[in-house]
Amino acid sequence: MFVKDPAMTDDIQLTKATANKGKVLLVGAGPGDPEFLTRKAMRVIQTADVVVFDRLVSPEIIELVPQATRCIDVGKAPGNHKLPQEDINTLLVELAGFGLTVARLKGGEPMIFGRGSEEASALHKAGVSFEYIPGITSAQGAAAATGVPLTHRGCAFGVRYVTGHRAGNAALDLDWASLANEDTTLVIYMGAMNIAKIASQLIRHGMASSLPVMAVSAATTPRQRHVFSDLSRISTSAQGFEADAPVLFVIGHVVSLGAEAALGAAATEKVMAYA
Amino acid sequence: MFVKDPAMTDDIQLTKATANKGKVLLVGAGPGDPEFLTRKAMRVIQTADVVVFDRLVSPEIIELVPQATRCIDVGKAPGNHKLPQEDINTLLVELAGFGLTVARLKGGEPMIFGRGSEEASALHKAGVSFEYIPGITSAQGAAAATGVPLTHRGCAFGVRYVTGHRAGNAALDLDWASLANEDTTLVIYMGAMNIAKIASQLIRHGMASSLPVMAVSAATTPRQRHVFSDLSRISTSAQGFEADAPVLFVIGHVVSLGAEAALGAAATEKVMAYA
Repeated sequence: MFVKDPAMTDDIQLTKATANKGKVLLVGAGPGDPEFLTRKAMRVIQTADVVVFDRLVSPEIIELVPQATRCIDVGKAPGNHKLPQEDINTLLVELAGFGLTVARLKGGEPMIFGRGSEEASALHKAGVSFEYIPGITSAQGAAAATGVPLTHRGCAFGVRYVTGHRAGNAALDLDWASLANEDTTLVIYMGAMNIAKIASQLIRHGMASSLPVMAVSAATTPRQRHVFSDLSRISTSAQGFEADAPVLFVIGHVVSLGAEAALGAAATEKVMAYA
Repeated sequence: MFVKDPAMTDDIQLTKATANKGKVLLVGAGPGDPEFLTRKAMRVIQTADVVVFDRLVSPEIIELVPQATRCIDVGKAPGNHKLPQEDINTLLVELAGFGLTVARLKGGEPMIFGRGSEEASALHKAGVSFEYIPGITSAQGAAAATGVPLTHRGCAFGVRYVTGHRAGNAALDLDWASLANEDTTLVIYMGAMNIAKIASQLIRHGMASSLPVMAVSAATTPRQRHVFSDLSRISTSAQGFEADAPVLFVIGHVVSLGAEAALGAAATEKVMAYA
């Protein structure tokens, strides 16, 4: 349990501020290691009036919030259900309305699968000032912690991030023909539930069944797990991963660079640093 | 001029260290704003024995290197030519061989178009310890500084980074049919030289000529320039950008979210914060 003070807004004793105008900072908390926070994110966490976070922010980062600062966990509403996005938007507008400086902490990067722009849009409509503070996205954290690059000359000319999960468990209608491109590293966020289907569709659309794949969860934290496999075996290889932590899949020739490095003596310490 | 001390290795007075084993830290310097460095990158910059950097690292970040630390600029070899990659690899191996802790600073993220994994491979072969420290990549810096998200529900289901430039000015053999997908935000790194060709190919392969495009250079620095345009007009719109600074193009419906925010009063300060 890492909730310091799971107070909701109605517990906060405040009157409408007059001099102070509230503001919301949409902050990327990065992949998990507090060392990979940006300097600005760190400063904001330590000086904000309120911190609003959800379950993708690592406990190590929540530890950095000063004891006296209110923390609101919007990932754990009563009954263990997530607070709906609309309610989060309303909460942020309300807190800023009290004249507070609000750090809205999100795992990874707010502009990549972080719904930061949805919150920004609600804040904009309500006339609330906001600012984005970027964060290291999970794909980068996974790369740094395993030695698997996202691009590499002669091996991957680009990188693509997609989600392996649709809102409300809707069907995954990805453009498989476009994704099945071995010249581009393909990173699947939140893909654990659908990885068997994803792998078989990619093979059907032309990717080699022997194409290297890495699965990573909780990259850069002491709970990191990662495994090197290939497209035909990945759904089996990643089965032991905790259902609770989002799993990231990196698919492409670049994965062999990390797998090779892991076998070398010099790089072992690096590759396993977070294992 | 931001070279503090453009010394090359032969100027460094050292004997082979015995107790200390050298190490190379492949550090992402982020998009330019020193506030967007990670905490670990900042610490490494301030404690390394030598800093090796190139021209994509912002002068504001070079300012953070302590005066006493040797700085080697591998982007400005004699005659204003870049030091070839192989020579950079050799330099890093040699410096580590002296027992030094070397911060190899790269603009953005070493694992995304940063050739970090090429240097890692050379270090690995030479038995030199190394470690990756991720950085905020330019696309994220551009997003934070302009309010243009990289993904957004119902608007962009993913994001793709490609380079608009090939080594030695080789022909740009991109898979246009795959790239011309309006459901995925397309980010072109280093695309200034080929943007007219890129735009016309994307239109030919099915993207709307009215699809919003943003061009950004030096995002998050006081030298930032950005312009909102569309596919049919972008090569003209971005013509005034300095030839020296790399230009990033963000192509997709998400761009309209930043353009709209820029028109709103509440967001103006945010959007123009770095302008």
